[in-house]
Amino acid sequence: MVKVHTDEREELCNLTSLVREFVKSSGVRTGSVMISSLHTTSAIFINEWQEALLHDVKAYLANAISKDVYYRHNDPAWSDCDRHNADSHLRSTMLGISLALQIADGDVVLGEWQSVIMAEFDGPRDRSIRLQAMGIASEK
Amino acid sequence: MVKVHTDEREELCNLTSLVREFVKSSGVRTGSVMISSLHTTSAIFINEWQEALLHDVKAYLANAISKDVYYRHNDPAWSDCDRHNADSHLRSTMLGISLALQIADGDVVLGEWQSVIMAEFDGPRDRSIRLQAMGIASEK
Amino acid sequence: MVKVHTDEREELCNLTSLVREFVKSSGVRTGSVMISSLHTTSAIFINEWQEALLHDVKAYLANAISKDVYYRHNDPAWSDCDRHNADSHLRSTMLGISLALQIADGDVVLGEWQSVIMAEFDGPRDRSIRLQAMGIASEK
Repeated sequence: MVKVHTDEREELCNLTSLVREFVKSSGVRTGSVMISSLHTTSAIFINEWQEALLHDVKAYLANAISKDVYYRHNDPAWSDCDRHNADSHLRSTMLGISLALQIADGDVVLGEWQSVIMAEFDGPRDRSIRLQAMGIASEK
Repeated sequence: MVKVHTDEREELCNLTSLVREFVKSSGVRTGSVMISSLHTTSAIFINEWQEALLHDVKAYLANAISKDVYYRHNDPAWSDCDRHNADSHLRSTMLGISLALQIADGDVVLGEWQSVIMAEFDGPRDRSIRLQAMGIASEK
Repeated sequence: MVKVHTDEREELCNLTSLVREFVKSSGVRTGSVMISSLHTTSAIFINEWQEALLHDVKAYLANAISKDVYYRHNDPAWSDCDRHNADSHLRSTMLGISLALQIADGDVVLGEWQSVIMAEFDGPRDRSIRLQAMGIASEK
């Protein structure tokens, strides 16, 4: 289990090095690694780690899944949650909380521009990310 | 294979207990479980099982991927499908039809607020969900 | 690694036969197959392969994630990328670049209407798709 601390309500965190080092230390030569957020208001996805693009991702989501429209989850008449985070749940639902990547030659398989990104949608928080490598080890 | 019956066109079904019991009975101690819908108008996702939030998920999708705009898939001039379910296919495409979760200590790894949810977008129907647990068993 | 050539900026490619033949030739009888695009402007998803519906998927994305609004990733003041492909990255982010399917009886498990589809969002390009089958083989 890895703890990831976030400082903003909406924040993108680059998990690539952490995943890569986990896979190398796991001893798995061929197999897969699963990266799972144990929450319902964050997400895991793959894309390019570029400051301008990260801004665009946040701006797109702010528009597509607005924070400030009416949601029952934010309404005391319907819900006992007082975090006003229905938008965070919806973004998590649309992006997904878990993904699997391939392992080959003892390393995670990622394209040149691919990074593993955790999206925080209801921070600041301490998030638990669980990593699991499965497959074939070789030793001699 | 598990059959899940739905009663409404749009319906959310909680599969968490079903997945948990399947994993426990599988004998897998460490590994992963895959939950796959075998359809193109339903989806599988993880989020919180709260009535107000489930309403918000349905309302968000009704707005983001409208049932009642023009689609070629619903137009007899272009398609021989008469179910008027292009929106159902699009929702399934955006949410995904399959996911994998980790297994540890013989149980599926889920965070405190996480439920495994099947989304029906073109019911009522009988849906086929295939579960598969893979990994390491221990016996003595 | 499989190379998939695309001819249009936005194009959908049916990978089902390719995945099916890979699984059959892998020798895996029970397990899973992972299908991963190694890029950040394409996606992998499951849905029905019908011409009218494929048109609807492209039209939906053209509307939901517009190519022609302002993005920092497309602005030379913020980004050194001159492909004007922020929309392609966002579509890839929302749909996902990788998925896993079950293998049973030596074949990939797909429902009657399910196809494995690669979405090109920034072609024409040569795309690298990596396939990996893991699981149990039987021989005699």
